[in-house]
Amino acid sequence: MSSFSGNLLVAQSGGPTPVINASLAGVIAEALNHEDEIVEILGGLNGIQGILHEQLIDLAEESQQTLRNLEHTPGAALGTCRYKVKKQEDFDRILQVFEAHNIRYFHYIGGNDSQDTAAKIDALAKERGYELRVIGVPKTIDNDLPLTDHCPGYGSVAKHIALTVREMSLDNAAMGRNDFVSVLEVMGRNAGWLAAASVLAQRQDKRDDSKNAAKNTHYSCSAPHIVLLPEVPFNADNFIRRVEEVLKTNLHCFVVVSEGVQDEAGNFLGADTTNTDAFGHAVLGGAGEYLRTLVEERFSGVKARASKLGIAQRAASHSASKTDVEEAKLCGREAVKAAVKGESGKMVIMSRTGKEQYGVETLLAPLADIANGVKAFPEKWIGEDKMSIHPDFARYALPLIQGELQLPYEQGLPRYAELSKKRVQRKLEAYPTA
Amino acid sequence: MSSFSGNLLVAQSGGPTPVINASLAGVIAEALNHEDEIVEILGGLNGIQGILHEQLIDLAEESQQTLRNLEHTPGAALGTCRYKVKKQEDFDRILQVFEAHNIRYFHYIGGNDSQDTAAKIDALAKERGYELRVIGVPKTIDNDLPLTDHCPGYGSVAKHIALTVREMSLDNAAMGRNDFVSVLEVMGRNAGWLAAASVLAQRQDKRDDSKNAAKNTHYSCSAPHIVLLPEVPFNADNFIRRVEEVLKTNLHCFVVVSEGVQDEAGNFLGADTTNTDAFGHAVLGGAGEYLRTLVEERFSGVKARASKLGIAQRAASHSASKTDVEEAKLCGREAVKAAVKGESGKMVIMSRTGKEQYGVETLLAPLADIANGVKAFPEKWIGEDKMSIHPDFARYALPLIQGELQLPYEQGLPRYAELSKKRVQRKLEAYPTA
Repeated sequence: MSSFSGNLLVAQSGGPTPVINASLAGVIAEALNHEDEIVEILGGLNGIQGILHEQLIDLAEESQQTLRNLEHTPGAALGTCRYKVKKQEDFDRILQVFEAHNIRYFHYIGGNDSQDTAAKIDALAKERGYELRVIGVPKTIDNDLPLTDHCPGYGSVAKHIALTVREMSLDNAAMGRNDFVSVLEVMGRNAGWLAAASVLAQRQDKRDDSKNAAKNTHYSCSAPHIVLLPEVPFNADNFIRRVEEVLKTNLHCFVVVSEGVQDEAGNFLGADTTNTDAFGHAVLGGAGEYLRTLVEERFSGVKARASKLGIAQRAASHSASKTDVEEAKLCGREAVKAAVKGESGKMVIMSRTGKEQYGVETLLAPLADIANGVKAFPEKWIGEDKMSIHPDFARYALPLIQGELQLPYEQGLPRYAELSKKRVQRKLEAYPTA
Repeated sequence: MSSFSGNLLVAQSGGPTPVINASLAGVIAEALNHEDEIVEILGGLNGIQGILHEQLIDLAEESQQTLRNLEHTPGAALGTCRYKVKKQEDFDRILQVFEAHNIRYFHYIGGNDSQDTAAKIDALAKERGYELRVIGVPKTIDNDLPLTDHCPGYGSVAKHIALTVREMSLDNAAMGRNDFVSVLEVMGRNAGWLAAASVLAQRQDKRDDSKNAAKNTHYSCSAPHIVLLPEVPFNADNFIRRVEEVLKTNLHCFVVVSEGVQDEAGNFLGADTTNTDAFGHAVLGGAGEYLRTLVEERFSGVKARASKLGIAQRAASHSASKTDVEEAKLCGREAVKAAVKGESGKMVIMSRTGKEQYGVETLLAPLADIANGVKAFPEKWIGEDKMSIHPDFARYALPLIQGELQLPYEQGLPRYAELSKKRVQRKLEAYPTA
């Protein structure tokens, strides 16, 4: 049928998500459907950095069992990197590796930096007349990629955060006597999508029971009572006033804070620049710990506790959203389908379908348009008081956290996949740099 | 049949656990089986503090649906307290409340402080000739109560910690190039049982593959590579040396630290007494944050990240151990059975049965013997290097984390119970103090 055939290379980049391996599983599963066009299915270890060093594995060697478990395994099974390709030398080398291994399909699962790299590889291949199809697969828990309705990875971490807030708030309510403040620090360096997701823990009747709910969420609803986003400069006095208000009517006050919140001078919370360690580095206690200390300083008789989920939140596959896992896999599949159809230089994006019932369709967007944008949390969904979230956001986010996986457990813990990583023989000289 | 009958009062105390409500559900379920002996089933709000203020609710008013969901609901549904009854006046008042409401059965679900209070109430009732049966129900995630093989609450938090380590370590391994240190701070102010449980994340083949496994766990096994217990004084140089060793052979080094670890001078890690805030309080960054900073100071080119689960770990009912939930409920049931049989002044404890297959039987131990002991993590299970755990511990702990619950989910999150809390009419004057 097709006159164009060759090998497929897939790699992962940036911070892992609970579903980046589901996207990988989607790429592999779909590639197996196109044996006329796709000869071998190779994995690049450690993202573009491993590709430079010709660290390739043969994914066809992995067992069916491994591929099945891969769909719900946290981390990035191929390894990942934060290396940013800049030098022309690096790009030349990448194309050399592709030629040596007859790579004709390249799928990079990652965020905007990674898609930027993919765009440049695509452009270089076109310039050199090397026939290559590059289709990116979106990934980021931060949900800040442009053009797509949302990003694979976001729904699962949003679900884990909402779940954690709901559970912790039951504990806090049992402990508090209008004198307990609980602070949960969540990820999100530049955008508040993850912090905002904490409001999904609120009971829906509470969320919707007022025409003016955004105004009221901080005291009339269940936790969280205060949500601090990187989009809003932090003002300590306003914050303390709000905590005081909440504690008047609530047993406890639940605060969710993005790690990326900055004060009005542009300093990250908890980044005390006057407090440096022996080597002169600023000691960063983190935003949550900062707020805990602030509350205990400003109120006498109020106890405050801080939790910081850190990497645990983006690795929590055991509480993944089934919707997210399925969409992540879909994006992987659709990337391969598009490449086989002859598309290149694009990334798969999702568009929401249907008014009544949630659904998505996939489309393609130019890689170059993805590479340079960041989608901040929209102002229309920030409550009037700048410390709460408008109920319309929940209508957007709630479908993304639906559904639970039934993980296989073994000895009390989930069974996760580990790739056997059978190496493909090198064909080039070692690459000295990177 | 029985000539002794009256009302039952149950209350919860201390920090909540994922299964303290399962014990409450056990008490209620069993009490319903004894209608000749037990007339009304009352709940005391906010532990002994609420009882002093006659804050009682009628548990018979709760729906079957609520009681079913209560078994897997985090927090403490009745509310809890950390109030320690000391004054004779308080004890007199408690007995007054009991008399006013014809309380003849009292079940306090809590740790050693709570059982101490229960013991004193029992003694006072005997002294005054007030017929009362007091049977305690054990509860603590710290697993440090004496006499019992283990404590309800421990298994679920142990499972959540092991699960978190397994998930995070997959993420870390994908990111690390022998240059990444991940620190997870877990609860355990006085005893290292929870930190130790992190080794259940290690693959069993790795754990048992050496005759000298305790010596080798820090580098030959999967995460965690280093476990720091409150039982072992912290030495920064030894710690740094061990991190260096681990990073020689591992992509990443995973450190689990108890919040209660102290240095050789007896200071909590991260409690920098020279660094005080505006009000002169010591700023406590926490043990995990301290280690993160230490690693980044001592190694150049090594990235470190800290996570602190905080209250999230003891509220994580969604990942509770089924074994733990069932045992917590059993302890509640057995407390009522013992009281109906005429026992008093005792707490239910668990004893392990069978060599081949795990099982427990319940026994009774005098409250006074529980009240004053703390069971430290046994020295025989601390590895030779003082930073690892002997494999025999896993044989003890593994049965406790077995089994998963199938929680009811609603809109993407678990449905948890909330008591309707129908108040019992007060019969006494208000109590001025406490």
